[in-house]
Amino acid sequence: MRAKEPDEGITVTKKENFSEWYTQIVNKAELADIRFGIQGFIVHRPWGFFLIKKIYEYLEAAVEAQGHLPFLFPSVVKEENLHKEKEHAGFTPNVFWVSEAGDKKIEERFALRPTGEAQIYPLYALWFRSHKDLPFKGYQSRIPAFRNEMTTRPFLRGREFMFFETHDVFNTHEEALEQIEQDLATCKHVIEEKVHIPFFYFQRPQWDKFKGADNTYTPDTIMPDGKRNQLASTHDLGQNFSKAFTIKVKGKDEKDQFAWQTCFGPGVWRIMAALIGIHGDDKGLIIPFDMAPVQIVVIPILFAGKADEGKEVLSFCRQVVKTLTNKGYRVTLDDSSESPGYKYNKWEMKGVPVRLEIGPKETKAKTVSAALRTKEKRTSFVLADLTIEIAHAAATIDKDIHARAEAYFAHNVRSVDTLDTLKKTLHTHRGFVTVPFCSVDFDGEKCSDVLKAETDGGNVCGTLYPEEDRVKQGQICIICKKEANHLVYVAKSY
Amino acid sequence: MRAKEPDEGITVTKKENFSEWYTQIVNKAELADIRFGIQGFIVHRPWGFFLIKKIYEYLEAAVEAQGHLPFLFPSVVKEENLHKEKEHAGFTPNVFWVSEAGDKKIEERFALRPTGEAQIYPLYALWFRSHKDLPFKGYQSRIPAFRNEMTTRPFLRGREFMFFETHDVFNTHEEALEQIEQDLATCKHVIEEKVHIPFFYFQRPQWDKFKGADNTYTPDTIMPDGKRNQLASTHDLGQNFSKAFTIKVKGKDEKDQFAWQTCFGPGVWRIMAALIGIHGDDKGLIIPFDMAPVQIVVIPILFAGKADEGKEVLSFCRQVVKTLTNKGYRVTLDDSSESPGYKYNKWEMKGVPVRLEIGPKETKAKTVSAALRTKEKRTSFVLADLTIEIAHAAATIDKDIHARAEAYFAHNVRSVDTLDTLKKTLHTHRGFVTVPFCSVDFDGEKCSDVLKAETDGGNVCGTLYPEEDRVKQGQICIICKKEANHLVYVAKSY
Repeated sequence: MRAKEPDEGITVTKKENFSEWYTQIVNKAELADIRFGIQGFIVHRPWGFFLIKKIYEYLEAAVEAQGHLPFLFPSVVKEENLHKEKEHAGFTPNVFWVSEAGDKKIEERFALRPTGEAQIYPLYALWFRSHKDLPFKGYQSRIPAFRNEMTTRPFLRGREFMFFETHDVFNTHEEALEQIEQDLATCKHVIEEKVHIPFFYFQRPQWDKFKGADNTYTPDTIMPDGKRNQLASTHDLGQNFSKAFTIKVKGKDEKDQFAWQTCFGPGVWRIMAALIGIHGDDKGLIIPFDMAPVQIVVIPILFAGKADEGKEVLSFCRQVVKTLTNKGYRVTLDDSSESPGYKYNKWEMKGVPVRLEIGPKETKAKTVSAALRTKEKRTSFVLADLTIEIAHAAATIDKDIHARAEAYFAHNVRSVDTLDTLKKTLHTHRGFVTVPFCSVDFDGEKCSDVLKAETDGGNVCGTLYPEEDRVKQGQICIICKKEANHLVYVAKSY
Repeated sequence: MRAKEPDEGITVTKKENFSEWYTQIVNKAELADIRFGIQGFIVHRPWGFFLIKKIYEYLEAAVEAQGHLPFLFPSVVKEENLHKEKEHAGFTPNVFWVSEAGDKKIEERFALRPTGEAQIYPLYALWFRSHKDLPFKGYQSRIPAFRNEMTTRPFLRGREFMFFETHDVFNTHEEALEQIEQDLATCKHVIEEKVHIPFFYFQRPQWDKFKGADNTYTPDTIMPDGKRNQLASTHDLGQNFSKAFTIKVKGKDEKDQFAWQTCFGPGVWRIMAALIGIHGDDKGLIIPFDMAPVQIVVIPILFAGKADEGKEVLSFCRQVVKTLTNKGYRVTLDDSSESPGYKYNKWEMKGVPVRLEIGPKETKAKTVSAALRTKEKRTSFVLADLTIEIAHAAATIDKDIHARAEAYFAHNVRSVDTLDTLKKTLHTHRGFVTVPFCSVDFDGEKCSDVLKAETDGGNVCGTLYPEEDRVKQGQICIICKKEANHLVYVAKSY
């Protein structure tokens, strides 16, 4: 048996050093390669990109079911359009500029898109003429966005990162608000039910909303290092952009009116980071069954000097692989020359949900020995029951993943009502802390700044949506000591 | 009945003014919008992007069946890597440079990717160590590439255009050559069988191969204006790039050896342009059944002042839509307030394969009147047979599309054996012309240049692959009059 190479496992525990654990798992499970040579631009390796594609598939199916049509805009945006909406122009300090072509300077430089509004809405202004053209729901998927971030981390923050966005246009504000609810339903369906990541849905404070929006709503989760991970955002744009970009239609009354808009941007990378960080353990990735690039790995157990026996084992393995492949499962036979122990570690690192081990004993008995990625002990399946057992195993694994994530998340909210206890709690507790707070309107920003400074980076995430926690009578804002009108969630962020 | 607006149909014929016809159909079928504001960067509108996505789906399925794994590299590339392979550095004069971020100059500018080799192969050098790591087949899909082209045209040439590429690494040249055959099979399957575009597969002359390749093979078709449209290219890279980027593995003999590489780039845009140009007619697009965003449109025929009758018609229409939707077809009920004639024109422009018209007569008789996009006359389907009739209609339409394209292509090759007749033929004939030619190796380039100048832009496309036409004994090169060794295909190009 080949000795396990020292660098094959993760050398730290997730609990003790999450940051290093995360770096190692991204590398050793072959999710991404950071050696591309330009800071903040990473390579999505096949194992990681398969997972990303799955997240995109879920999102596409969800928004198409709501009537969204796919389109594709360029990777770039005209400079003047970036400035059209006053608040939105706040993106400009972070954009990359294409300013040369070949050996010449470009007359009118253009930017790599930081997000879609400024490139899409000038065309919306041309496409819609009548109230009959609305509602219009469009989306683009599997596209990059670009921002010149100072610190970068695979799947958490990049100078180029994977993007998905819907851009919807309505005749009335009511329809726009209904879309916000549908976006929340998409988050629940994809993030919670498919990827098994629990989250809180917040309404962001006014000072922390999307640049140009009236209101911003976000599903946020907590990573194992206690930092908030914003998984998506959906925005009620009101008529801000329709006025800036002149998106107006003739109403039933024949009068021109500005359209109402929403947009929704699930953080495909952020969801991936949550999957890695929240589900994974010290052996490596743990992947929900439907998402796994390989769902079942079959490992023959062969003994040296027993060639005939080995042939029978391999032939039985192939039979098992064929049976499962025909049922539509993604199955790999690992008949490489490495030792079984090496193979166990390798496929555990990659998070394959089910491992089937087949030796001479199993071959004779027409059984397989099954190790589920979320269980310590192996079980045994009879060949005749194989496909039904695999279906059970898949359900068991997903249930385990879901339950663990829920249990982890359930412990991550504390409540305090003084700045002192907030400081202490944020220091030791990994999660959200609720505090009484004066205002989530612009007049609360000053208190939020003080809170951030006093707590070494604590952020006011907002209030729970659609129903916020009630603040108790007599509670006061932990910063200004005035009457508290909201119970806000505080967490440190990436 | 509302009068047809003057700009709703195509105002020129495809035969008389293909260029204008193409511009109008791209616009009026809502495939792309060229009003994005940066030259050569277009917006893929939903109708057009659906078709593009279909082409991608076919390609992904085909290359995955050959064992290709999906990955994703950044949109950018390091400057020094662009220069590593000597010939390949020929791309540099055409690249866009990102040289500023925010209000600062970037220390080390980087390029928007003109193609994948220079960004992917430095990582391949890190990923593969042993002959056991090979073969490796990877691909990236639904990505843009960028080149600073002087003239641009939707789906034919853009400064940003949709890309797809496989990059394969082998232990032996034999395996690489086998892959070239598989790439040809992919072209046949996707381009010919799915999109119904006929083509010749050429081996390009040495002077016109991909920068850095040993050999380039391309499926080329002819557009209705007589210009060659290169639909894909596959390259035998030999060891040129593995040497430039140091991609080497330890062989079975424990010695390091440079890998053998191929890459394959179907022109997703070019295939789309061929679909538009070759299948379309003076009424608009014609789309193969499986590709159509809407496969069946149902149009109620209502008469003014007959509300009860109208209700029954609409109810029957909805029943038909439901039956077909449940069978998995993409169906739209057009119950807008426009006139039937307006609707016929609209959906014909968009290329919807089947139109079902349902009025009071049909409602009473439980039948539908069916207009197939490729037929002049309507037929009638009995409701009980609807799904089987639609399946027949789909097959009929695809057969018609295929047969028309084949017939069109069959007339597009002429043979001549003097420069004078070539000149005349290229002037009037829309298609390929075969001529006897001295050499397709580098020593033929001079004759090729003369040919181009003399014929006002005629290109030597290469020789048929895998089996080239035999040149007759005694035939001489039409330019240098030396012995002809090849029968080459000449055409004008975009």
